Amino acid sequence: MAARCQLTPILRRLARSTTEVSRQPLLRQSLSRHTVRHISTSRPRLFQPTAVSQKGELTSEKYPDIQRDSRFAQVTPEHVKFFKDVLGSESAVVDGVTSDAADDIAPFNSDWMNKYRGHCRLVLKPGTTEEVSKILKYCNDNMLAVVPQGGNTGLVGGSVPVFDEIVINMSRMNKIIEFDEVSGILVAEAGTILEVADQFLASKGYIFPLDLGAKGSCHIGGNLATNAGGLRLLRYGSLHGTTLGIEAVLADGTIVDDLCKLRKNNTGYDLKQLFIGAEGTIGIITKVSIQCPQRSAAQNVALFGIESYELAQQAFREAKGQLGEILSAFELMDEGSQQLVRDVTGNKSPLEEKYPFYCLIETSGSNAEHDAEKLQSFLEDVMEKGIVADGTLAENETQIRSLWTWREGITEALGHLGGVYKYDVSIPLKELYQMVEDVKARIDAAGLLGDTDEFPVRAVVGYGHMGDANLHLNVSTRRFDERVEKVLEPYVYEWIAERQGSISAEHGLGLMKKKYIGYSRNPTMVGLMKNIKNTFDPNGILNPYKYL
Amino acid sequence: MAARCQLTPILRRLARSTTEVSRQPLLRQSLSRHTVRHISTSRPRLFQPTAVSQKGELTSEKYPDIQRDSRFAQVTPEHVKFFKDVLGSESAVVDGVTSDAADDIAPFNSDWMNKYRGHCRLVLKPGTTEEVSKILKYCNDNMLAVVPQGGNTGLVGGSVPVFDEIVINMSRMNKIIEFDEVSGILVAEAGTILEVADQFLASKGYIFPLDLGAKGSCHIGGNLATNAGGLRLLRYGSLHGTTLGIEAVLADGTIVDDLCKLRKNNTGYDLKQLFIGAEGTIGIITKVSIQCPQRSAAQNVALFGIESYELAQQAFREAKGQLGEILSAFELMDEGSQQLVRDVTGNKSPLEEKYPFYCLIETSGSNAEHDAEKLQSFLEDVMEKGIVADGTLAENETQIRSLWTWREGITEALGHLGGVYKYDVSIPLKELYQMVEDVKARIDAAGLLGDTDEFPVRAVVGYGHMGDANLHLNVSTRRFDERVEKVLEPYVYEWIAERQGSISAEHGLGLMKKKYIGYSRNPTMVGLMKNIKNTFDPNGILNPYKYL
Repeated sequence: MAARCQLTPILRRLARSTTEVSRQPLLRQSLSRHTVRHISTSRPRLFQPTAVSQKGELTSEKYPDIQRDSRFAQVTPEHVKFFKDVLGSESAVVDGVTSDAADDIAPFNSDWMNKYRGHCRLVLKPGTTEEVSKILKYCNDNMLAVVPQGGNTGLVGGSVPVFDEIVINMSRMNKIIEFDEVSGILVAEAGTILEVADQFLASKGYIFPLDLGAKGSCHIGGNLATNAGGLRLLRYGSLHGTTLGIEAVLADGTIVDDLCKLRKNNTGYDLKQLFIGAEGTIGIITKVSIQCPQRSAAQNVALFGIESYELAQQAFREAKGQLGEILSAFELMDEGSQQLVRDVTGNKSPLEEKYPFYCLIETSGSNAEHDAEKLQSFLEDVMEKGIVADGTLAENETQIRSLWTWREGITEALGHLGGVYKYDVSIPLKELYQMVEDVKARIDAAGLLGDTDEFPVRAVVGYGHMGDANLHLNVSTRRFDERVEKVLEPYVYEWIAERQGSISAEHGLGLMKKKYIGYSRNPTMVGLMKNIKNTFDPNGILNPYKYL
Repeated sequence: MAARCQLTPILRRLARSTTEVSRQPLLRQSLSRHTVRHISTSRPRLFQPTAVSQKGELTSEKYPDIQRDSRFAQVTPEHVKFFKDVLGSESAVVDGVTSDAADDIAPFNSDWMNKYRGHCRLVLKPGTTEEVSKILKYCNDNMLAVVPQGGNTGLVGGSVPVFDEIVINMSRMNKIIEFDEVSGILVAEAGTILEVADQFLASKGYIFPLDLGAKGSCHIGGNLATNAGGLRLLRYGSLHGTTLGIEAVLADGTIVDDLCKLRKNNTGYDLKQLFIGAEGTIGIITKVSIQCPQRSAAQNVALFGIESYELAQQAFREAKGQLGEILSAFELMDEGSQQLVRDVTGNKSPLEEKYPFYCLIETSGSNAEHDAEKLQSFLEDVMEKGIVADGTLAENETQIRSLWTWREGITEALGHLGGVYKYDVSIPLKELYQMVEDVKARIDAAGLLGDTDEFPVRAVVGYGHMGDANLHLNVSTRRFDERVEKVLEPYVYEWIAERQGSISAEHGLGLMKKKYIGYSRNPTMVGLMKNIKNTFDPNGILNPYKYL
């Protein structure tokens, strides 16, 4: 009974606090939850000034140490003629070779952050697998380098040219081919937009086993090519588990038909797995077959205050045990990150007191009543055990969205305060937060961290997908200062490597992290990967200058 | 209310019927559930006589078209001396080269069904990864062929020698290395027995995401090497999703350390996936890192009678929707298969009437009361909608086991009735059962099916893991008759190939299905697989004569 007595005021408090939240929206009210999410997953490793970097700086100028591979041919009018013959429709070729198409081509040359910019003069938009095959065969025969491009929402510069590589944009291959309402298996073309696929599935009572901030733009083929992690990984696992089959085209035009629609098929090496996360370096994915779970009828969200990272781990353990099959998110935020949100938004915290850590828990299940009961009994239990110090439970969709803003508003808040160094990493759970402590201590010891203007660093904060051991370390700065960068790197990468962590939890390598792979993969692994690359793409025409 | 009224007598009936079941056990009372399961997953494609085939027939005699590869050296006393020097302990080498060790070596030369038998004279049991590395390097340098062997519980002859290949048995590498109680990530040596791992996990409140009849003998390394499917796939997905990392040794002795303990790590090709399901043909898995889910506190089982396969599909769809996150098994049995169980056991069906189809549903969740409520309300709903004709719900562990015997006793019953042709296949759900109908019609049209002794075929039945679209087609015969085989093959394989099904849902290729891969994989895929094999094992010393 003691626990229930404790809980009642908390539940009451919620009604007040979330109402307050909804009266005091975040600064940019127009930001949809998705937009915030998209931003929140951005830009690991790099000083990120408040203003977006100037348009116009070419990747080749920014990184003068990367040289164009002279084995690759320049695109000629003759090449263009071939492609126009293959693709037929004029709109499927954006031709900056025989005409001036600079404006039309610009969006394909730059990533959405405008951080990378190539200078390709030809964009091809095949409409069928056979067209992709013809294009690649020709490119391979003529040593023309290509960049496969999906929704171009990547964060590591993987989907735009570095030099004059031909862009093969998949947006015209956007058909949902079939869906089995009994098994939940969806087959669709690679250029299908994730949100379109998910909305289609929603109408059938199913859900795409992946959710991303960029869902309104990203392609499912690109999701597979980058092995996107996203918000549903804790619940539905990675694409390596949910993808049943793919169709892909190799560098020489060979069509690999592995579009299996079966959950079980033990007949040889599972080759499709190599394409998942290969970032278009061994082939272009043209079709996808994926196992989709039923859509959950009910969703609940709670936010807790917790006194230590040790207790946060205990809370996670208890949540997994007691909420088990309905747990769909377990997010961690430290007080520093929440202070930034309060500073920027002026909003009042949903909890009355401050705590060193906060956890946001989401459940998704088939029965709202059962789920609420489980969540409430979990809350009582962890409070009685002293694991959780305080908590609040959302009671409707508005309150759910309000609670989520305390997690999703962090990056937005950081962006308002000045420059920021961002690292998106994975570390075994036990030491996940230690990274923030160590980095903070190091910056402090160097005399760079403080509340007043004389210190370049304002705050070192950590938050992320605790359920996936995926941390966002953010160093918020007042201005660029070389000393900060020197204190941070290569220290952070070495710290990750010592703990067998990953320098890229989910964003991939692209151009940005190509040279850092050694911090997460040993030379034997990298050597084997290069063998794979050479086996599938001996001329190296697919997405050169990146990945390995 | 109508639905609830309908349900009450069903629930009452259960108390009677399952009591009856427990008074009339299956013929072999000593068979544990696991033993039955093991048998029930056995022997696809082959006339299986009642008596086990005589010990003594060598694989090389049985399949005279398979020739020993003359590139491989014979094992000499000098080789044996090297291995003894490496492995130190005498017990780690079973030496039939310099001594008479025929009896000691026999169990390593034969599979558990005694269907395949090699004549190797040397078994090595390394205790460390470094020892595996030294052994393989030496074998590669000296062109000595090897067979990696786990618990030797495979069903396709993949883990025993065909000729005189050296057996590398992994049973001494059986340590649990570490377990993170917060994240649920287990790291263990490949020779750890599945049941040992699962019991260890049970003591921590976790579960191995794979369950198999052979769990008491099979190794987790072998499970990965064969991409074992098992009983929990519907709920926890395949090993491609749950495996986080492996350590493996390549043919040339190179140790591949990919023992990642992270759920997210997007840094290069996911090489470990190639080893999952490779059946030891590109390397020997020495360690495993795996994501384990929380163990469910509650389990419920129900059995339904259903009037058509169309309605069975509807029931599956509804079960996924209404039971959602707690559904852990959905099994299909046709009336023919249940008739066989009744004939052999003399037991009375748990349902009063006969139905063309029966479905067994299992739920596993964190709250027994919630789960029972969901299952009951599901039952009411599907009965009200006319999807399910009758049903029964187990109320305790004994009743749960009783209901399971109606699914798991099928193979046992078939075994008592004479020879049987077995096919373990996967077909898109819509046509899953059509295979049984078509095969039955074909055998009937050939005048081979009937109730009296003049007909060689007694029954054509189908059952299996409907949730995974995994069917067991069984043709029960009174005696061997060449005409039956001619009617069945290649018809069955062609039928599967036409529907893009799999000729091996979960057992793998091994020696048995090496030559049938073309029915499920196109020449492009097989060609790429051969490239992979050559890249990783250019001398072909790893598990020759099999797989591809």
